[in-house]
Amino acid sequence: MNPNPRPFFVIDGIDGAGKSTQVALLAEALEREGRSVVRVRDPGGTELSDRIRAVLLSPSTPVSPVAELCLYAAARAQLVNDIIRPALEAGKAVVSDRFTWSTFAYQGWGRGLPKEAIAELEAIACGDVRPAHVFVLDLDVSVRSARLNQKGNALDRLEQESDAFFQRVRDGFLSMAQTHPASGTVLDASLPPDEIHKVILSEVRKLLG
Amino acid sequence: MNPNPRPFFVIDGIDGAGKSTQVALLAEALEREGRSVVRVRDPGGTELSDRIRAVLLSPSTPVSPVAELCLYAAARAQLVNDIIRPALEAGKAVVSDRFTWSTFAYQGWGRGLPKEAIAELEAIACGDVRPAHVFVLDLDVSVRSARLNQKGNALDRLEQESDAFFQRVRDGFLSMAQTHPASGTVLDASLPPDEIHKVILSEVRKLLG
Repeated sequence: MNPNPRPFFVIDGIDGAGKSTQVALLAEALEREGRSVVRVRDPGGTELSDRIRAVLLSPSTPVSPVAELCLYAAARAQLVNDIIRPALEAGKAVVSDRFTWSTFAYQGWGRGLPKEAIAELEAIACGDVRPAHVFVLDLDVSVRSARLNQKGNALDRLEQESDAFFQRVRDGFLSMAQTHPASGTVLDASLPPDEIHKVILSEVRKLLG
Repeated sequence: MNPNPRPFFVIDGIDGAGKSTQVALLAEALEREGRSVVRVRDPGGTELSDRIRAVLLSPSTPVSPVAELCLYAAARAQLVNDIIRPALEAGKAVVSDRFTWSTFAYQGWGRGLPKEAIAELEAIACGDVRPAHVFVLDLDVSVRSARLNQKGNALDRLEQESDAFFQRVRDGFLSMAQTHPASGTVLDASLPPDEIHKVILSEVRKLLG
């Protein structure tokens, strides 16, 4: 719809799908084309977000689903306020590891919170800052659990969730992309990283015109 | 409207108005009448709330107004989930030092965030848990600043705000009570604590029938 959206791109999906690799590849490609690029990770990137992230991942602090939702919103609000909005206003591109769709997938589909409440909260947290496009790296959840078994016992609060939880999260990402095809694309995360990157970059170039 | 509201009462207002004294007096009076009473402080009362409170009051961590709003909502959601709702469902009375009206006063009037967004967020955080009545202890803001001058330099992030900020907060509490007379009452915090307590207790008895 918007012919020249602000260059804000999100790589999203469950852990282990290769998000950080794709964030790096996309950011480097945009830099080679002469753009200034800011890379962020949500939650993260600000002192507040890092403190919130530490609380969220601590297995010993009980966090209710609604409190979790509000904490992610707080971290995102600070990230948008301090980094993403200023970067976009300065004409820079932003590439983020996770953003709003993670909240819909994890807290909406995963925890079962109402999507309308999440949408309201996201609007409060992000204001007019919306990604130009979300690339969802889709992965069978059994790959995730195999990887975590290698990690052993030091799992954080989210990693301790069941495969059934992550299956709901995966379904959530797929459903978001199906419901909002103009806003996001699903990519098969089992393909070689270079192939995935080519698809992402081609889509990004199309969007940037 | 509701002839038998659940016995959840809030003492609210700016710091230094004597809230904790009134919380204790009301809780003790209700206990003398044979009720089980749970006293809470918002934000506080859960491990998560205490961790959030520490972040919120730290002068060294930048917190945007929207992030602050979401953090208070997270702390309140956990408090409602872990303590207030279970207590009310078990037939106990709850007396809270601060609750939703503080958010309207501080983040709405004080920081200038839109009241509609706050109302949406509060509905997400608290669900169907609403105070039966809010008692606002109203105090001239100059009393607050005189008290803080005695405290010296170790002020937390909120205490460092200007008198103009606290004047807006005070106006916010007064406006809430004026707009929602059935939900809250303003009391002159400069009166003797016993006199204030008598008014509160008489109102609480009327509400409990």
